[in-house]
Amino acid sequence: MADAAVRPHRPATSRRTPAGGAPRAPHTPEEASEARIDVAAVTDLLLGTWGETRREAREMIKDPAFWQVAGMPMDQHRERVLTQLHLLVEAGGSRRAFPTEYGGLDNNGANIAGFQELVLADPSLQIKSGVQWGLFGSAVHQLGTKKHHDAWLPGIIDLSIPGAFAMTETGHGSDVAALGTTATYDPATEEFVIHTPFRGAWKDYLGNAALHGKAATVFAQLITGGVDYGVHCFFVPLRDDEGNFLPGVGGEDDGVKGGLNGIDNGRLHFDQVRVPRFNLLDRYGQVAADGTYTSEIASPGRRFFTMLGALVQGRVSLDGSATTATALALYISLTYAGQRRQFDSGAGTDEVTLLDYGKHQRRLIPLLAQNYAQFFAHDELLKKFDGVFSGRTDTSEEREDLETLAAALKPLSTWNALNTIQESREACGGSGFLAENRMVDLHHDLDVFVTFEGDNNVLLQLVGKRLLADYAAQFKGADTAALAKFAVGQTAGRVFHGAGLRQLGQAVADFGSTARSVELGLRVEQQHELLAGRVQQMVADVAGALRPASKLSRAEAAALFNRHQSELIEAGRAHAELLQWEAFSDGVARIDDEGTRRVLTWLRDLFGLHLIEKHLAWYLINGRLSAQRASAVSRYIDRLTSRLRPHVQDLVDAYGFAPEHVRAPIASGAEQRRQDEAREHYRRLRESGEAPVSEKSLKKK
Amino acid sequence: MADAAVRPHRPATSRRTPAGGAPRAPHTPEEASEARIDVAAVTDLLLGTWGETRREAREMIKDPAFWQVAGMPMDQHRERVLTQLHLLVEAGGSRRAFPTEYGGLDNNGANIAGFQELVLADPSLQIKSGVQWGLFGSAVHQLGTKKHHDAWLPGIIDLSIPGAFAMTETGHGSDVAALGTTATYDPATEEFVIHTPFRGAWKDYLGNAALHGKAATVFAQLITGGVDYGVHCFFVPLRDDEGNFLPGVGGEDDGVKGGLNGIDNGRLHFDQVRVPRFNLLDRYGQVAADGTYTSEIASPGRRFFTMLGALVQGRVSLDGSATTATALALYISLTYAGQRRQFDSGAGTDEVTLLDYGKHQRRLIPLLAQNYAQFFAHDELLKKFDGVFSGRTDTSEEREDLETLAAALKPLSTWNALNTIQESREACGGSGFLAENRMVDLHHDLDVFVTFEGDNNVLLQLVGKRLLADYAAQFKGADTAALAKFAVGQTAGRVFHGAGLRQLGQAVADFGSTARSVELGLRVEQQHELLAGRVQQMVADVAGALRPASKLSRAEAAALFNRHQSELIEAGRAHAELLQWEAFSDGVARIDDEGTRRVLTWLRDLFGLHLIEKHLAWYLINGRLSAQRASAVSRYIDRLTSRLRPHVQDLVDAYGFAPEHVRAPIASGAEQRRQDEAREHYRRLRESGEAPVSEKSLKKK
Repeated sequence: MADAAVRPHRPATSRRTPAGGAPRAPHTPEEASEARIDVAAVTDLLLGTWGETRREAREMIKDPAFWQVAGMPMDQHRERVLTQLHLLVEAGGSRRAFPTEYGGLDNNGANIAGFQELVLADPSLQIKSGVQWGLFGSAVHQLGTKKHHDAWLPGIIDLSIPGAFAMTETGHGSDVAALGTTATYDPATEEFVIHTPFRGAWKDYLGNAALHGKAATVFAQLITGGVDYGVHCFFVPLRDDEGNFLPGVGGEDDGVKGGLNGIDNGRLHFDQVRVPRFNLLDRYGQVAADGTYTSEIASPGRRFFTMLGALVQGRVSLDGSATTATALALYISLTYAGQRRQFDSGAGTDEVTLLDYGKHQRRLIPLLAQNYAQFFAHDELLKKFDGVFSGRTDTSEEREDLETLAAALKPLSTWNALNTIQESREACGGSGFLAENRMVDLHHDLDVFVTFEGDNNVLLQLVGKRLLADYAAQFKGADTAALAKFAVGQTAGRVFHGAGLRQLGQAVADFGSTARSVELGLRVEQQHELLAGRVQQMVADVAGALRPASKLSRAEAAALFNRHQSELIEAGRAHAELLQWEAFSDGVARIDDEGTRRVLTWLRDLFGLHLIEKHLAWYLINGRLSAQRASAVSRYIDRLTSRLRPHVQDLVDAYGFAPEHVRAPIASGAEQRRQDEAREHYRRLRESGEAPVSEKSLKKK
Repeated sequence: MADAAVRPHRPATSRRTPAGGAPRAPHTPEEASEARIDVAAVTDLLLGTWGETRREAREMIKDPAFWQVAGMPMDQHRERVLTQLHLLVEAGGSRRAFPTEYGGLDNNGANIAGFQELVLADPSLQIKSGVQWGLFGSAVHQLGTKKHHDAWLPGIIDLSIPGAFAMTETGHGSDVAALGTTATYDPATEEFVIHTPFRGAWKDYLGNAALHGKAATVFAQLITGGVDYGVHCFFVPLRDDEGNFLPGVGGEDDGVKGGLNGIDNGRLHFDQVRVPRFNLLDRYGQVAADGTYTSEIASPGRRFFTMLGALVQGRVSLDGSATTATALALYISLTYAGQRRQFDSGAGTDEVTLLDYGKHQRRLIPLLAQNYAQFFAHDELLKKFDGVFSGRTDTSEEREDLETLAAALKPLSTWNALNTIQESREACGGSGFLAENRMVDLHHDLDVFVTFEGDNNVLLQLVGKRLLADYAAQFKGADTAALAKFAVGQTAGRVFHGAGLRQLGQAVADFGSTARSVELGLRVEQQHELLAGRVQQMVADVAGALRPASKLSRAEAAALFNRHQSELIEAGRAHAELLQWEAFSDGVARIDDEGTRRVLTWLRDLFGLHLIEKHLAWYLINGRLSAQRASAVSRYIDRLTSRLRPHVQDLVDAYGFAPEHVRAPIASGAEQRRQDEAREHYRRLRESGEAPVSEKSLKKK
């Protein structure tokens, strides 16, 4: 049958008490007679350091020309998004990151902030913009030198040169260093010969490759004088003005994808394609006319990671756009939950909404807390990114910290996006499955966020390895040195020195916790201690388990490492969760308004307890929580969710979305109007005296 | 950047040891020198009681005419699926459930089994068939009487009367009893007047409503003589032969959905539409010409649930098709994982595949165990369904047990489907996001399974309430009687007597557990004790918490209940998990072949431990596991997954899918061929003496 039936039929006239098992709880802060947030101030807080740019971008995408059209066939969608990119150029939205001499604003933070907001219009638009200006354009900008900027940046910025970022190969996902495409220098003609030696070395999944790309930044093994100098990037023309492949270039369409179908992803291959020596993007490695290779970075591994690190902005950007898309889904599901009366409408006496149900509070409000944490953490990431890329704090330590922070936050925010969007869609039942209510398309489009720009598990493993190296660096003994050496080997030849973690013991101010006894052991200091202590111990445990590696053969050491791979990834995740919690706490500490601070402290506490509950078994096994205190965690969460319930609408209003950003009928107030109409119908029917009596009441007579 | 880089560049020629941290593990049972399963026998086991029908259906859908075409625009997809339904009629696939006198086979179990397999062709085809023959057709069959069968079943079976099942309303999802549509009897004309009194009472989300439906089974409040007799079902013509709405009927298209876009879901409304008295489907309630209402079921609540219960097959069917779709995703991701060499290809010396990584084993193999459990549990559900609907075991106790079992299993298998399909798609990286590899469309199409045919949370709550009632029935005292009364009130007026749970203490044979000391406490009896004990205690805890309800006002009692809603749902989930585990264990106990039994016992153990690990905090808090034993759970799982790794291909081959069912290039062997080609390329290059040397080796000189 189409529906669950869990309640007896009770005709409207016989109803006097709340139906369906839920009590009437306060719906607004006024009803709850307590603190409330300053909604506008919280919007400022969430929009963060580049709030002004975000507001500009949101204003621009109020134009329906930028909106996703549900169900649009792939070919039309691709053309629509290309058109939108041109509109973006006209609106000045494509130039923020580029140097002022090419009409840019040289403002890296604002650039990322502005692009992220496009996810509200259509994630395909955001990601295709990211391909053009964040990947293809960035490769020319960050890996090229002035001569390349002069030649190509103007055309990239104004979209007269749409381009693909040709790094990934079919046979190599995350293993960029081993990719198969070659670029062999021919001194006789001063050209590089770009070549695809086998099918697995085809470039794959590239946006702009199937249709629109006129050129590509192609990553290939640079070979000159019989020596392979590793992966470098080359500017390679792809198509003529009619859109036909140039000689030697071929490819195919990736076809329909799970989402983002406004982007023309495709495959490329090269059959001895010759490009001038000029086309090597040579900021980090140069080839002279005679074929002599030079680089200011002597270590091949370090050079490789420096080049890749210059392209970290993709991950930074995904962290932010996943956070904003998650907010949109929560806005929709929570607004609806505050209006929808599931086992009720028609009674005329009952004010219970979906959000009054214990289960509904439990499934959505902790996700709201998590999303707030992501906003605060993202702003820290973006500030670090801007510091490095503006040159203000461009040290190798800061670059490494930035990469670790991006590698930690991007996996969590993108997975959280999928989980939260899905939970939101399910919480809206059948209406959540209609494309008009946006959540299904958000899920489809963001799905690939968890595996592109670095597979999430691979990124967390990278974080785990850095933690291991930092841990090992604390010690001196021969064993730990060997451990560090091994870990570093696993971390792809890279030494993670730098600042490492935030100081785990740092003081965080405590605000607004109540004095209820069961909560005393779970206040802010304890939350921090539990979260930070877990990271420390997990890292120490993995390090201890790997210690024998130094005495093993390389194969045995690899086997030992493999047995602890999951734990290392979990340690990376724990670290990322701690960073989000710390960012949220720091954000709360900056709030002056008392009501806002109190409510956001509850929300931060909910986030902390939510994390602790997720890992409760670990805390129990490791003796960090007694069984008694552990069982208090869930009860405390229940209390926090019901305490926050009257503030939920304020908290989602604080996202600052306009109707043009939301565009979901179920969050438009239509549900409220339908219910009012139904109530009015039943009220008139009762007053008319013509309402049928119930069979049950008849039997009683 | 597009990819994570986590390894230094090591040119092919310098590689001698496993790369990327994974050791070479046995890939096949031969290599592992141990038991292996009899693949064909396991296929028989998984296909279950109606295996022959399943094989027939799978044979039929080898015809490409039945296959989903990725990215097909909605309008074309809808027409294609309608055409497929006609093909299904021609192949005799639509009649299995119906009486022999209308050309049917009167075989309920085979009918469900056959329909479920259609999910491999296109889930839209499966669900649209379900709408036509499982919902619309079943309503006429199960709620109507001979005169209705004579009038409409032939046209329903041969699809000359495509129909909609008009139960759900926009304003009422799970609350069927309170729906707003009315059917008022007019004795003057001997007609029912079907009417939609307000917008919230529009029928919504109905398959076949937007375009193809010529009639509908409409659920409405039956009013005669000024008395409302509650929800009954009426056969209402919708459209003429040209597809135009009949007078008084209106509606709109639900438009694009998150999946299943081959089905024309839509909305319907009725403005005083008159149908003959004949059109009341009157098996459970009749209206005489003068308007007198009669029913053999005196209680309105019981009558309502009897009518809904007659339509349980939707849930039974979803449990099975979700299980089969999950199997398909696992076949694809695990076959690929056994071929793909991520940080390797080109080396020519390295045999490590994705599936050798600890994390990869951990993320997928427990899901394989879970899917096997679902197959066994589904066959039990289907046998119970067939027993009841064939009349062999048609008692009210068996009907109630059937409904509870369906309410328990459907939520787990549909949620597991989404989780497993998503994990599978992520485990395949970018290639998993291409529609050609099937997993994204499976996720889209199955998404709504978790909220339709009974929202999963609502269903689990229903199970929890039944457990509570069973629990209360064990006692006599006044308090528990009051508790039972309250629980029953919450369970919508229905007394859950019947057989209740399986006997929790039943003996389950123990096979093949090894004698390792840490595993001794986690063998089959302990698994059962832990899983069953958890259900018992959770139910007792909720019952205890609700005990004061009898002394409270109705509103206060509702508030108390609401505070424990999540726990009650969790108790329902725990019960369902136990049922799956028991079914798996019973299935293993029936296996004669020793190798098969041993491997499937490992898999069953993995499933049991996977469940226990999920709820580890509960076991610790409640003193059911010591910290020491709890920490052994994860290590045991790690050992089981690596022990099962060589058997994975056998286990997915045992699903019995043909290439025409899989249709995913990445599971076709193409990956293996690409790698062989790459290896051959590097081998020749080395032998030619023209391979470039690495920069690193150069520096060493």
